Amino acid sequence: MSRSPTEPRLVRVTASDNVATVVNDGGLPAGTCIPTGIASREIVLLEDVPEAHKVTLVDFAPGDDVVRYGAVIGAATEALPAGSWMHEGRLQLPQVPSLDNLPMATSVPPAQPPLEGFTFEGYLSPDGTVGTRNILAITTTVQCVAPTVEFAVRRIKSDLLPRFPNVDDVIALTHGFGCGVAIDAPGAEIPIRTLRNLALNPNLGGTPIVVSLGCEKLQPSRLLPAEKLPILQNEPIVVRLQDDKHTGFLDMVHAIVAAAESRLEQLNRRRRVTRPVSDLVVGLQCGGSDAFSGITANPAVGYASDLLVRAGATVLFSEVTEVRDAIHLLTARSATPEVAQALVREMAWYDAYLARGGADRSANPSPGNKLGGLNNVVEKALGSVAKSGTSRISGVSGPGERVTTKGLVFAATPASDFVCGTLQLAASMNMHVFTTGRGTPYGLAMAPVIKVSSRTPLAEHWSDLIDIDAGTIATGQLTVQQVGELIFNMILDVASGRRQTCADRWGLHNDLVLFNPAPIT
Amino acid sequence: MSRSPTEPRLVRVTASDNVATVVNDGGLPAGTCIPTGIASREIVLLEDVPEAHKVTLVDFAPGDDVVRYGAVIGAATEALPAGSWMHEGRLQLPQVPSLDNLPMATSVPPAQPPLEGFTFEGYLSPDGTVGTRNILAITTTVQCVAPTVEFAVRRIKSDLLPRFPNVDDVIALTHGFGCGVAIDAPGAEIPIRTLRNLALNPNLGGTPIVVSLGCEKLQPSRLLPAEKLPILQNEPIVVRLQDDKHTGFLDMVHAIVAAAESRLEQLNRRRRVTRPVSDLVVGLQCGGSDAFSGITANPAVGYASDLLVRAGATVLFSEVTEVRDAIHLLTARSATPEVAQALVREMAWYDAYLARGGADRSANPSPGNKLGGLNNVVEKALGSVAKSGTSRISGVSGPGERVTTKGLVFAATPASDFVCGTLQLAASMNMHVFTTGRGTPYGLAMAPVIKVSSRTPLAEHWSDLIDIDAGTIATGQLTVQQVGELIFNMILDVASGRRQTCADRWGLHNDLVLFNPAPIT
Repeated sequence: MSRSPTEPRLVRVTASDNVATVVNDGGLPAGTCIPTGIASREIVLLEDVPEAHKVTLVDFAPGDDVVRYGAVIGAATEALPAGSWMHEGRLQLPQVPSLDNLPMATSVPPAQPPLEGFTFEGYLSPDGTVGTRNILAITTTVQCVAPTVEFAVRRIKSDLLPRFPNVDDVIALTHGFGCGVAIDAPGAEIPIRTLRNLALNPNLGGTPIVVSLGCEKLQPSRLLPAEKLPILQNEPIVVRLQDDKHTGFLDMVHAIVAAAESRLEQLNRRRRVTRPVSDLVVGLQCGGSDAFSGITANPAVGYASDLLVRAGATVLFSEVTEVRDAIHLLTARSATPEVAQALVREMAWYDAYLARGGADRSANPSPGNKLGGLNNVVEKALGSVAKSGTSRISGVSGPGERVTTKGLVFAATPASDFVCGTLQLAASMNMHVFTTGRGTPYGLAMAPVIKVSSRTPLAEHWSDLIDIDAGTIATGQLTVQQVGELIFNMILDVASGRRQTCADRWGLHNDLVLFNPAPIT
Repeated sequence: MSRSPTEPRLVRVTASDNVATVVNDGGLPAGTCIPTGIASREIVLLEDVPEAHKVTLVDFAPGDDVVRYGAVIGAATEALPAGSWMHEGRLQLPQVPSLDNLPMATSVPPAQPPLEGFTFEGYLSPDGTVGTRNILAITTTVQCVAPTVEFAVRRIKSDLLPRFPNVDDVIALTHGFGCGVAIDAPGAEIPIRTLRNLALNPNLGGTPIVVSLGCEKLQPSRLLPAEKLPILQNEPIVVRLQDDKHTGFLDMVHAIVAAAESRLEQLNRRRRVTRPVSDLVVGLQCGGSDAFSGITANPAVGYASDLLVRAGATVLFSEVTEVRDAIHLLTARSATPEVAQALVREMAWYDAYLARGGADRSANPSPGNKLGGLNNVVEKALGSVAKSGTSRISGVSGPGERVTTKGLVFAATPASDFVCGTLQLAASMNMHVFTTGRGTPYGLAMAPVIKVSSRTPLAEHWSDLIDIDAGTIATGQLTVQQVGELIFNMILDVASGRRQTCADRWGLHNDLVLFNPAPIT
């Protein structure tokens, strides 16, 4: 531990927190004065406190609640004056919340003042959704057709796309589902509706093109039944490879290319128009998290989330296993008891899914988490939930469901980065914000991904992969609010096509990975 | 039904069959003389029999066994003289076989005479396996790194591969596993060993290159632990993107490209050498099957399988849900009681897996199957099992396990084409034969796929996708044996690089799709 840091740095996430986290590389020694602005009165450290660990900002009596992220993360096990090190041994673990008797819509945050006058330039689709990109996508019913569609897409991109400069990209929506699956088993509706709603993502401009083999279990009529479709400009275009009219491989390719050409002509006529921020559907996610994620990148994203909600947008947060231990806070924050009940439904479903597979949420912090200052599972979950800001929760969707609610919505997904991203796209996400501490070169073909680093060394080291450095909050260069505003503004710039993300610069697009809880056959 | 076909055509699969299947497009009318060679005595049809349906070749008493594919598919429900239509209403369904009290190695076929002198030209690897291709593959531990590896592979193919003309291809082994998974849950060892054994496939020449992110659950040391590796020329090369030495995206790409260059130099020095057929590991599969699959393409492949086994090769047949109803025949045919017991183990595991997910094997023939002459589930399973020929079963492997046994091996997999193909590659398949009735443009990047059509119209219609037309058996142009020999010879030609498959001509390569029975988190 360095004995005399030139400038003590601590982070207090919300004004109601009674602990703050030490940022300085080597921790802080006893005798350090806590900067004003962090504590409400003058506090001197009574003992050495390591980097990323917590300092008490008030005098604690045994049993007093310890508040971080504006929420109770446990109770003090002993009397601790302000300036003490609040470590694992002094913090009593709360019980993992039962799903019975949760507080339902008991602490609904008041609506924040509307944020008016913010707009972006987007593509209006016939169904009323708005894209941040103008992409031609070719949906597939089954993996069998994937190589044929990819062959056709290469040809479309080389031969046709140059003639349609207003179209951003041509992509094949390929996946591992569609046949050899127990298509009527419980849970199989999840991958099916995911594929359906991916095809209807706002960035694809309506009127899906679907390539089917012919004998697969997931028939086009089941993937895109008329009664499940929004009002589209045209019916879906279906190319079925086993149809007698296709004589050989190149003929199949020609049929796909021809369908694409007619769609490219439609898409190419579209122009960006000024739209209110309320047309954005912003998905939030974290991956490769570290101890700083919960105090830099995630709260900054949470601040941006609040701005988006005030401006009328839809904001999606997800990752069931990363919010499970904070569920009592989320049900309380829900706008209505019905929303809270829907949250409980999704948690209970996932608990049962994991139990059936002989697993649990493995939520205990890892040794690395603990070294990094995360004392327990509640603190870990709160770090993740910090992305959702402070708004009331207006809605809940099941995995792969399309979201139409405005405001902050919990879109239930696994925490796996690529599965969560796929499901948020199905929920109709048109912009994605991804926070990372350890670093990942993540990206999506269907929506731009803004990557926010939790710490400055990563942002500097990966300067061509990280879009925004939230480590500046820990170093004291910027506040949570300032980085939140940077993120908010970058969302508008990227959504409008004025700025490019690092992932799009390199064309880094992860696969669509479906969540299929049902067996395969 | 046409009243006077110029030439009645029927198929009798084995000499012990007491029914034969009508091939003629419009069926056969009462009064038709069954050709000699099909029946042992002169038989005249007593009634009209539709296309693909069965004719009795002997006089049946009520309760007599009906034999097709050399196996009992049910019992006659009434007295039927030779020349009758054996339809669903006259055939009593056998019980679905219980896994208790099965005949264990009770009908072991005698070893067939060795087939000597057949060779192919292959690439010998340091671990003693032999490739039919000389491919550089880059293994990935997690989906997070997939776009980066794909970016590097494009660069390797454009900038490096032209300098290494003896290397056939450069491929990225990407997948949806590796993180956000319950990695210690029951069943998670299946995708892990699958990825490990894919990296060790004979067509990849040993010494895997592994790209890891760094923080993922599936660490390189777990993917390729030293104790699980065969003797390789070198230790696996690991590139870890989060290592501090990588400064930014292009530096990561350079590290992958540099690793690839050193491997390309090694691989490029390899030359094809003459090898015995016993070095082949031929995976068999059917997909998009129709009523002709079991009487044309699958028996012809079965004949080729017997030739391969006689020549000392390894032949893999798979697809648990398609053999489940014929399990009593397979346990009887097993070389030893231990092999039979291993078959029972795999069936029981799959029964439990499906039941846990609220599904069953859905083995009843579909209405389309029944119209096509498939009367019951046993007949359907036997049509699939026909691919395995008549040899004794020498071994059984679990999903994703590497197979080292020679002879006919049951490699347990789901029936899903792309999942089965992926698992057969993990089993160390270096050649693939795929039969299809309805048609699929299937292919694999890691091993050549010979596609065999069950009927001539498909082969003619899809002349640039089907390699061999087994419909010639139904039309009487060729026998099962002749088509089997065509398949056997094409396997040797393709394995030697002398002939190209249709899938490779177009570069049609399906994704690797893992079988992960464990939950994701």
